[in-house]
Amino acid sequence: MDQPEFKPKDERYADRVRDSFARQGAMATIGASLGDIVPGRVVIELAWAAGLSQQHGFLHAGMVATALDSACGYAGFTLMPAGAGVLTIEFKINLLAPAKGQRFRMVGQVIKPGRTVTVTEGRAYAIDDGREKLIATMGATLITITGRDDVKN
Amino acid sequence: MDQPEFKPKDERYADRVRDSFARQGAMATIGASLGDIVPGRVVIELAWAAGLSQQHGFLHAGMVATALDSACGYAGFTLMPAGAGVLTIEFKINLLAPAKGQRFRMVGQVIKPGRTVTVTEGRAYAIDDGREKLIATMGATLITITGRDDVKN
Amino acid sequence: MDQPEFKPKDERYADRVRDSFARQGAMATIGASLGDIVPGRVVIELAWAAGLSQQHGFLHAGMVATALDSACGYAGFTLMPAGAGVLTIEFKINLLAPAKGQRFRMVGQVIKPGRTVTVTEGRAYAIDDGREKLIATMGATLITITGRDDVKN
Amino acid sequence: MDQPEFKPKDERYADRVRDSFARQGAMATIGASLGDIVPGRVVIELAWAAGLSQQHGFLHAGMVATALDSACGYAGFTLMPAGAGVLTIEFKINLLAPAKGQRFRMVGQVIKPGRTVTVTEGRAYAIDDGREKLIATMGATLITITGRDDVKN
Repeated sequence: MDQPEFKPKDERYADRVRDSFARQGAMATIGASLGDIVPGRVVIELAWAAGLSQQHGFLHAGMVATALDSACGYAGFTLMPAGAGVLTIEFKINLLAPAKGQRFRMVGQVIKPGRTVTVTEGRAYAIDDGREKLIATMGATLITITGRDDVKN
Repeated sequence: MDQPEFKPKDERYADRVRDSFARQGAMATIGASLGDIVPGRVVIELAWAAGLSQQHGFLHAGMVATALDSACGYAGFTLMPAGAGVLTIEFKINLLAPAKGQRFRMVGQVIKPGRTVTVTEGRAYAIDDGREKLIATMGATLITITGRDDVKN
Repeated sequence: MDQPEFKPKDERYADRVRDSFARQGAMATIGASLGDIVPGRVVIELAWAAGLSQQHGFLHAGMVATALDSACGYAGFTLMPAGAGVLTIEFKINLLAPAKGQRFRMVGQVIKPGRTVTVTEGRAYAIDDGREKLIATMGATLITITGRDDVKN
Repeated sequence: MDQPEFKPKDERYADRVRDSFARQGAMATIGASLGDIVPGRVVIELAWAAGLSQQHGFLHAGMVATALDSACGYAGFTLMPAGAGVLTIEFKINLLAPAKGQRFRMVGQVIKPGRTVTVTEGRAYAIDDGREKLIATMGATLITITGRDDVKN
């Protein structure tokens, strides 16, 4: 995955990501925690749990998508101005292999930032018996929302 | 959404969907329940909950995707032979509007069944103060797995 | 495919589509012509040609996508204000069956119009020995561009 | 973009790509030529032409997709066994910037090869006044077809 260098518009980008992440009830429900936060790139980690599984015991594709979508959304959010909100317009996920493992690492990366539209990519890795394996890729398009009280931060 | 008529390969299709759904820990976690199950079409319903929200209080896009992915997967599963398992290869979701509402209804529909590859579409509706609104569309590609003990039903 | 009723912002929407279509060199190259133009819905037709084929003689997936993308883009364009330009942000296409036929009909339909972002869906049909068959579905996201001289109409 | 090393199943992979490419009428129509062919990675190049343009004079998104789809498809094809055919099941393209330039370079890369399903990614670059710029990303899912006379090579 390309990792271009980006300059954030707001120095407090990491704090804004942490504040927003803490308000996502879904992240607490799936037991996700924030890893690295750098301009244009955010890592989210979580552990396998029975309550996140599909019928064969693998992590449900939707749960992989939930964590990857947040990673991509916050990757874009690091480059947005203070006071802006971020919404996902669309994302696509390819499930490369069953999500089998004890832990999972989701990496969201900005490919092309924009004033209105930001394009990101995500990679999901399963850690199974100590070996890390790429299990899913995501492409997500974000929109920057400004001037709306119900969609900020 | 087109709703062609399909003939199931296994008369017990609805029971197989219910059995498999009951094994998805993720469906219990998000409080989802099965609605209509007809050949090529499955409905899943859930209520809003703080534990499913993103930072603005809307249903998290990933949770919309989780329920839609199951609806699409089980829509395809109704047409698969007994003993087969279903896995999602990829899906794409367009978030048309913030997922704001008290209840949500997800409809999965087979567009093109196949021996190996099945293509489905999903629609997510929010019910907000009694009014139903289309909030997301999904396209999901499924694969039929046969002869693998770890991926059946 | 849902076909909601839409009210155009500019009564000259059909003329604007025709003018813009006539400037797309790619449409002439693939031999495409405009069919129905109604608010939120545009049809494009083309004939099979050796110069549009992939290695097995079917219409190339990219050529199916080219005609569908124009159909979706112009479907969105019918609802945009005079002077605005339209660009595709992203599209996804599912190839349901090999594009085998003498003629092809592409239908673009707006699902959700918006001031900035418009979401559309496309359906591609092959007409093979007089029988019409759904061969591809597309989801395309458009952006309305205003105030840029190089991207209008 | 990750570039894992792959071992081809058939040593004649490059010749098979060239033979198949030469049969794609669409590649001749858009003036595309093959660049590098290595296991899991294929490059396709083309020049801007009025006959490939959309209404603003940029390369039509569908033409970008046509060349990228072939690059991705042939990237997957390099890893398939002799006698197999390749078909695209679905692809998604994000248009990051208007396709403005004199020449274009499309890179297709396998992310995850499989016996039945292969997942690939593509990158499209515009060369404008000597400067290369990333203008589009693609994710494409391929299927390996064996034992069908109408879909081989």
